[in-house]
Amino acid sequence: MRGTVLHAPGDVRVEDRERPTIIEPTDAVIQVAAACVCGSDLWPYRGIEPVEAPVAMGHEYVGIVAEVGDQVTTITPGQFVIGSFFASDNTCEICRSGYQSSCRHRQLVGGAQADYLRVPLADGTLVATPGLPADDLVPSLLAASDVLGTGWFAAVAAQAGPGRTVAVVGDGAVGLLGVLAARQLGAERIIAMSRHEDRQKLALDFGATDIVTERGDEGIARIKDLTGGLGAHSVIEAVGTQESMMQAIGATRPGGHVGYVGVAHDVQLPGLELFFSHVHLHGGPAPVRQYLPHLIDLIWNRTIDPGKVFDLQLPLEDAAEGYRAMDERRAIKSLLRP
Amino acid sequence: MRGTVLHAPGDVRVEDRERPTIIEPTDAVIQVAAACVCGSDLWPYRGIEPVEAPVAMGHEYVGIVAEVGDQVTTITPGQFVIGSFFASDNTCEICRSGYQSSCRHRQLVGGAQADYLRVPLADGTLVATPGLPADDLVPSLLAASDVLGTGWFAAVAAQAGPGRTVAVVGDGAVGLLGVLAARQLGAERIIAMSRHEDRQKLALDFGATDIVTERGDEGIARIKDLTGGLGAHSVIEAVGTQESMMQAIGATRPGGHVGYVGVAHDVQLPGLELFFSHVHLHGGPAPVRQYLPHLIDLIWNRTIDPGKVFDLQLPLEDAAEGYRAMDERRAIKSLLRP
Repeated sequence: MRGTVLHAPGDVRVEDRERPTIIEPTDAVIQVAAACVCGSDLWPYRGIEPVEAPVAMGHEYVGIVAEVGDQVTTITPGQFVIGSFFASDNTCEICRSGYQSSCRHRQLVGGAQADYLRVPLADGTLVATPGLPADDLVPSLLAASDVLGTGWFAAVAAQAGPGRTVAVVGDGAVGLLGVLAARQLGAERIIAMSRHEDRQKLALDFGATDIVTERGDEGIARIKDLTGGLGAHSVIEAVGTQESMMQAIGATRPGGHVGYVGVAHDVQLPGLELFFSHVHLHGGPAPVRQYLPHLIDLIWNRTIDPGKVFDLQLPLEDAAEGYRAMDERRAIKSLLRP
Repeated sequence: MRGTVLHAPGDVRVEDRERPTIIEPTDAVIQVAAACVCGSDLWPYRGIEPVEAPVAMGHEYVGIVAEVGDQVTTITPGQFVIGSFFASDNTCEICRSGYQSSCRHRQLVGGAQADYLRVPLADGTLVATPGLPADDLVPSLLAASDVLGTGWFAAVAAQAGPGRTVAVVGDGAVGLLGVLAARQLGAERIIAMSRHEDRQKLALDFGATDIVTERGDEGIARIKDLTGGLGAHSVIEAVGTQESMMQAIGATRPGGHVGYVGVAHDVQLPGLELFFSHVHLHGGPAPVRQYLPHLIDLIWNRTIDPGKVFDLQLPLEDAAEGYRAMDERRAIKSLLRP
């Protein structure tokens, strides 16, 4: 079968790879209907994370179940399913508390940019749609696999909700879908921080009420201007750099909530500044599994259309262009169809 | 009047100081009934924080109102009152959200180890007791001024409550009263981390169910042993060092809550470790004002006896000995009576 392999920074290829098979009796193998390139895939692509050896890429996926192991009871071949980047048993105490991405038996899912994908812990990881989806729903369902689920977790962690002003740091797919999540959760005012016109438009389309183009201390000052000098109640951080974290903390009022989901890169939070900021800080790898049933429902009923973040759709063969376009910020997010 | 002045590390003296007067029409001047030495006073006393110039010490106080400014309406001379280290208006949006220690008009109160003390924003800062207290209630009321209110905030921030296991990092007065607060808030199990027998005893007296003597990674491993490998639901951090913060974060289960109130000294939180810890982090200077009415009620009705943390009571004249005893860990906390 075909699948992407990152050989070195900037060098991603579609190659023949061995088709995955059932290894554990709790596994499923799915035929991938669509996968995509994640902002976090760009870290090694750009050489910011080292590439020690060639690695099969992709951790966002939807597809049709091809095969299941003997112990799989709720997922059956032929179903259209969505899973997340961490496989989870969904039965341990941590899963039951809603933190499936810290499941005691979690396993990273990888190599999803391919014809087929092995998903461990299938019963606890995959969620089936009510039937085979219309083709135009596929991008939105794929978004639920990571970027929507992650933006949703960030909005929940930031306690976006009625009466609250939410600011969003980061205008990638996760930040934009954080806007959508905040809107769905009932936030009164949603300030998207972006200096790119196409992303601003999508943010407004997803429910942003204000756009702020400034960054860093100037961005913080703008958010304070817009909130009576106090800062936002809720701030979503969807980048993962020192600057974005400090921008998020600084833009939050005392007693407010920061929900951070950008995978931290060289971030060190100064203790005393955090102490006097009086913010609540919560985040990490999104427990997407928790939200999947609700998100699938919203997509299936066409209440939300998160698939709009895919502004580039390519056949799997052209994966390299999908990476390049995101790297060069010509695309917000690239969808790949095997 | 007499009051303590810190001249240099290790050099605290009781000296003649000018008696404070009403400066702003919202001020009160109180005759101090009791004050005390704070763990945070030990930072400059030990030279870990610089002492740039002689400084009047003390920010914990109870006393009788001597005089009020023209605009003070709810506090009257003769009342026995308690206030906190930050004066607050208690009317701004941040105060009303429960974060009086980040009040938009907050002012630090200082020089409380003295015969008289000026308290700004008296209406928003001071809370009167139902009457003149019995003498044996004075230490507990004084504890409410900071260490009890701070331990309480830490327990609330850590979401201590029914069904939850709480671990407490730090066995100073704040940590010990964090134990008491967790007990009052209904926590099921309370693990005090302490290697000092006198403090262990007080922790058990305040409601701890378990004692852990290990620290750092060993302490984290012990907490995990005691919690089915998961970590505590709630961890109170009451020290303020890199080690104590990492111990608190490491001892918390994914999705759990860290309430941190130790004033951070040279703390840098590693972003990636925090990200994957999945904890909620909240803390800062405690909004003691929010809790004062409830804490006074619990003390007045003799439901709690937080004054037990004062294991050394001295006349104000002997303040230097009060500092020494705490510095040498001969005393948990020193109470000073003018």
